[in-house]
Amino acid sequence: MLDIETTDKEYYIMNLNRKPVNSMNYELLKEMNQAIKELEANKKCRGVVISSKLPVFSAGLDLFEMYDPNVERMTAFWRELQDMKINYFGSPLVMVGAINGACPAGGCAIAFSCDYRIMADGKHTIGLNETKIGLAAPYWLAESMKLLTGHREAERLLALSILMKPGEALEKGVVDEVLPLENVLERGKEVMEEWLQIPDVGRAQTKKQFRKYFLEELEERRDEDLERFIKGVTSPQLQKLLGFYIQQLKKK
Amino acid sequence: MLDIETTDKEYYIMNLNRKPVNSMNYELLKEMNQAIKELEANKKCRGVVISSKLPVFSAGLDLFEMYDPNVERMTAFWRELQDMKINYFGSPLVMVGAINGACPAGGCAIAFSCDYRIMADGKHTIGLNETKIGLAAPYWLAESMKLLTGHREAERLLALSILMKPGEALEKGVVDEVLPLENVLERGKEVMEEWLQIPDVGRAQTKKQFRKYFLEELEERRDEDLERFIKGVTSPQLQKLLGFYIQQLKKK
Amino acid sequence: MLDIETTDKEYYIMNLNRKPVNSMNYELLKEMNQAIKELEANKKCRGVVISSKLPVFSAGLDLFEMYDPNVERMTAFWRELQDMKINYFGSPLVMVGAINGACPAGGCAIAFSCDYRIMADGKHTIGLNETKIGLAAPYWLAESMKLLTGHREAERLLALSILMKPGEALEKGVVDEVLPLENVLERGKEVMEEWLQIPDVGRAQTKKQFRKYFLEELEERRDEDLERFIKGVTSPQLQKLLGFYIQQLKKK
Repeated sequence: MLDIETTDKEYYIMNLNRKPVNSMNYELLKEMNQAIKELEANKKCRGVVISSKLPVFSAGLDLFEMYDPNVERMTAFWRELQDMKINYFGSPLVMVGAINGACPAGGCAIAFSCDYRIMADGKHTIGLNETKIGLAAPYWLAESMKLLTGHREAERLLALSILMKPGEALEKGVVDEVLPLENVLERGKEVMEEWLQIPDVGRAQTKKQFRKYFLEELEERRDEDLERFIKGVTSPQLQKLLGFYIQQLKKK
Repeated sequence: MLDIETTDKEYYIMNLNRKPVNSMNYELLKEMNQAIKELEANKKCRGVVISSKLPVFSAGLDLFEMYDPNVERMTAFWRELQDMKINYFGSPLVMVGAINGACPAGGCAIAFSCDYRIMADGKHTIGLNETKIGLAAPYWLAESMKLLTGHREAERLLALSILMKPGEALEKGVVDEVLPLENVLERGKEVMEEWLQIPDVGRAQTKKQFRKYFLEELEERRDEDLERFIKGVTSPQLQKLLGFYIQQLKKK
Repeated sequence: MLDIETTDKEYYIMNLNRKPVNSMNYELLKEMNQAIKELEANKKCRGVVISSKLPVFSAGLDLFEMYDPNVERMTAFWRELQDMKINYFGSPLVMVGAINGACPAGGCAIAFSCDYRIMADGKHTIGLNETKIGLAAPYWLAESMKLLTGHREAERLLALSILMKPGEALEKGVVDEVLPLENVLERGKEVMEEWLQIPDVGRAQTKKQFRKYFLEELEERRDEDLERFIKGVTSPQLQKLLGFYIQQLKKK
């Protein structure tokens, strides 16, 4: 579900490739966690450009992990998601997001973990739209938005489930560049090469300093965050809503 | 001192109405605290538009609560103010501010507790101007400004007692929209209806996550905050200054 | 190494004057720490305009304090730097920076401690460029940048060792005004007079509230910060690099 490509430079390209829309289930998250650990252990790898082989970047969490759930599986799923956030946001590697399409909800958990985000222009959107279905985004995903936009803007964006067009996302600091689709990956590689001109040691230490509190808090609040998720998802209203969405998906 | 109006939708309008300028004394604050608790308990109420029946939004704290004070009364007064901040900033209801006029100092304690602020255009101002009379705004009011504007801007605004015209307040993120006076309340209602399209449960939980640290800190620092207020207000210099202002008010 | 000038008002002008480029060694930092304490004790002094008698503001830390170091001296040096940050950032005096030229790396430790920064326009730059030589800026200097620009911008600026032209620094909030060189000191004095119109007591208390967490954290993390510095600086790679820079400087 991940295509990892080498380059002739010191970085790799990681393409999400779980059809049809890169929705994140337990298996994809597990593969992502293994992949980043392997890339970090690989001495030839100093950075990763993250993109997608499909027409969307990622549609977010897989609804089937949440509908009619088995608590054991759901727990393992959520722990992989927490690990993914910790591993990707906390990675000493340079991480550049080449966001080639839609990036709602859980997709932002990947995109917001990068050091730099380039987004394809178009009609697709990016943002955290959990409140619309009666859920709150996990606190750490809200906090990730806050690090990009500041407190007040983040609070409003999440409260109202605002999905931003690329231009609006750029204006608010949610992404760093917006380009035509055909240039996104190429620009991602260029940006990576700029970042790799900086020696790793001080750059990675700087990144660690900036992200330390976020990562420590998430380690501490793992169980609380898991409980909140399970409680929210297993509520009868949400199950009913998920059933409705899944019916619609099956019709397509 | 509060006019609460029903609407044909799921929200209420709360109008400050303590003549002549909605200055906040013990009784007004107590009424505000009772009102919000009742509205939260009212199953038909999902939101409150806060405005004023007078030509100003609120002139801030009532100087008569601070001049030649009785410590017992002043303590009760400040505790009601702390409660008001906790109740209004922490309310799960949608709170929209329809700021129809001047909103200096303590007036911001109400305005900054809303989810969204619409301000009437005009010559009136909004801001924290406590330093000009030799006081510091309470730390939690300073912190409220910081959540809107970021650290550096907030520090400068408070240090210099800057009162902003509506346009400047908009630019700095202190308010969200500026409109001609006659459209402010109408727009407040529209905004409320937009927010009420989002189910309460996830929206309120999101709000709680964003405001958790602020509210926890204020609970913890209540006594320290009270002591600082009493110490500042009972200083001979401040009493003299308040005496001078009150003489001027009486002449009008 | 410091020229302190009186004015006919209630403030002083402190000019950095250690030839050729105001690089900060142990002696300069010690003198700065003594000077601020004396100015704070001086009843005629309510504020300090900080500028430079040389064509740069400050080139940052003196490389000779770090090359082939004696650990005892290096420890004393770093403690003076920590003290300088605590004393200048925490001073109750009004501090205005009249930044008349280049202000890289450690120079920002002074500039970012001011209440307000006016920078001369020109080809010189300001910013934290430590990662380029394989170091991370101390966490508190990174944090200082974050207070000015917000989290994401600060992280990127530091990661990439970005040195900003005055106009870019203004846009990002790193400085507050950019003017032709000949007007910088004059404007610094004007700004000081504006700030001095505010009574000290509330203004200083407001400043203390805003800077409290930063200062408390730095007091707590002094030893950890010192260890990190010594470890980074004494690494063979960095020593080799410093040797190379010092050879180049000697050629000039």
